[in-house]
Amino acid sequence: MAKKPLILISNDDGYQAKGLKVLIEAARPFGRLLVVAPDKGESGMSHAISIKHPLRLTKQHEEQDLSIYSINGTPVDAVKIALNQIVDEKPALLLSGVNHGSNASISVIYSGTLGAAREGCLNGVPSVGFSLLNHDKDADFSMLEGYLPQMIKQALEHGLADQTFLNINFPDVKTNEIKGVKVCRKTKGVWKEEYEKRVDPHGGEYYWLTGSFNNFEPNADDTDEWALARNYIAVVPTQIDTTSYQELENIRKWDWYGK
Amino acid sequence: MAKKPLILISNDDGYQAKGLKVLIEAARPFGRLLVVAPDKGESGMSHAISIKHPLRLTKQHEEQDLSIYSINGTPVDAVKIALNQIVDEKPALLLSGVNHGSNASISVIYSGTLGAAREGCLNGVPSVGFSLLNHDKDADFSMLEGYLPQMIKQALEHGLADQTFLNINFPDVKTNEIKGVKVCRKTKGVWKEEYEKRVDPHGGEYYWLTGSFNNFEPNADDTDEWALARNYIAVVPTQIDTTSYQELENIRKWDWYGK
Repeated sequence: MAKKPLILISNDDGYQAKGLKVLIEAARPFGRLLVVAPDKGESGMSHAISIKHPLRLTKQHEEQDLSIYSINGTPVDAVKIALNQIVDEKPALLLSGVNHGSNASISVIYSGTLGAAREGCLNGVPSVGFSLLNHDKDADFSMLEGYLPQMIKQALEHGLADQTFLNINFPDVKTNEIKGVKVCRKTKGVWKEEYEKRVDPHGGEYYWLTGSFNNFEPNADDTDEWALARNYIAVVPTQIDTTSYQELENIRKWDWYGK
Repeated sequence: MAKKPLILISNDDGYQAKGLKVLIEAARPFGRLLVVAPDKGESGMSHAISIKHPLRLTKQHEEQDLSIYSINGTPVDAVKIALNQIVDEKPALLLSGVNHGSNASISVIYSGTLGAAREGCLNGVPSVGFSLLNHDKDADFSMLEGYLPQMIKQALEHGLADQTFLNINFPDVKTNEIKGVKVCRKTKGVWKEEYEKRVDPHGGEYYWLTGSFNNFEPNADDTDEWALARNYIAVVPTQIDTTSYQELENIRKWDWYGK
């Protein structure tokens, strides 16, 4: 009998997060699972790596075809150390999430969950990030159970193009409200930050990050935000290359030397 | 007389870094400078934001047309708070760096310096990140003094296309060795991590991140790594959109529902 494929799993909400457990359960029938996840919430850590402090791995759980480690680092650290220190074998798949909260549109760049998926992709592992549009730590992930196994199955069967990973977001609705799966482009938009300024008991001022999403193209029906707002599951094929090919010629025309 | 343009400056090596001072001096003739930079080194912080701890701003310096603040946060935090709390006026330009160390190829995604530039770009500010291929804190930046003013002048005159910023890397050589400025695409490559495992005095194991760059296309003469290795200054127009348009149709063909 062929050896089951190795599946690497991570997230940014930490190894005890409910969303991670949902993903583990969905993936179990498909392979041997290696879970390496941050020891605490690492939301908003993007593609950050730990340079100034050393990393420690703690084995939290071990049973047949399932090992769970925590790490005192970022999601990208978790993926790097898994690939470099824990296994010699290249995983057949990397799954990240399920994130508690949206990673649609520009959130892909702030997200630690997608940082983990991007790092897997960079290392040649087909990688998929999953997120539910509900930040609550006790969010109801039951709807996803009807979709995750088939998505994992398809990812294992098809793989992904070189330097490409998937960013999949689920609307926070019940199964009977889901319209379907829509493959989309990333919405153009920005988080408008509205810091909340406070004063500490000693008179010092400090700021908490708050903010709201500003969609630059709310009516574009090929975007992930449009799909999610209409109860579609949104899938965005996402690439590593960020070169703006269309601007190369314009920038070449600059007077670089001030002649 | 027209008011001088407002130029926002940040970095990831901290407000006391030599590279930041070089950038400030190069930019001074062109505008009113607002500098907001991390209070300590924040290399490798990518596009991370601070969610769990509040931010504090400290004014470090104030003179005619030059204000310098430090912040206990990431480079992206610095840009966000500058745009949202310090000035009402949208800057004419954002400059980030000069980073001590390369941000060519895939390092653009790990770099806090480029995180700051990306955040400016997201907010509609023409943004440029600068890096020198020398990690030393006392690196010699004198060659850059012959190029930075003209680059800043050109950025102010031309601006940049919507959702596009520039990633400019300088080779670590003397002025007479520079071959010129080359506008390039981002090199395909990956950091191969080789963690250094150590044991603490109490018997606990820990890992330090090390690693080396693996260039997947060392002979591609249109890439930034190729140019830098041949003493060109490399300029990569970099975009926000990471949708893989060529994969949209392939992914649509997946059997999403397991029918």
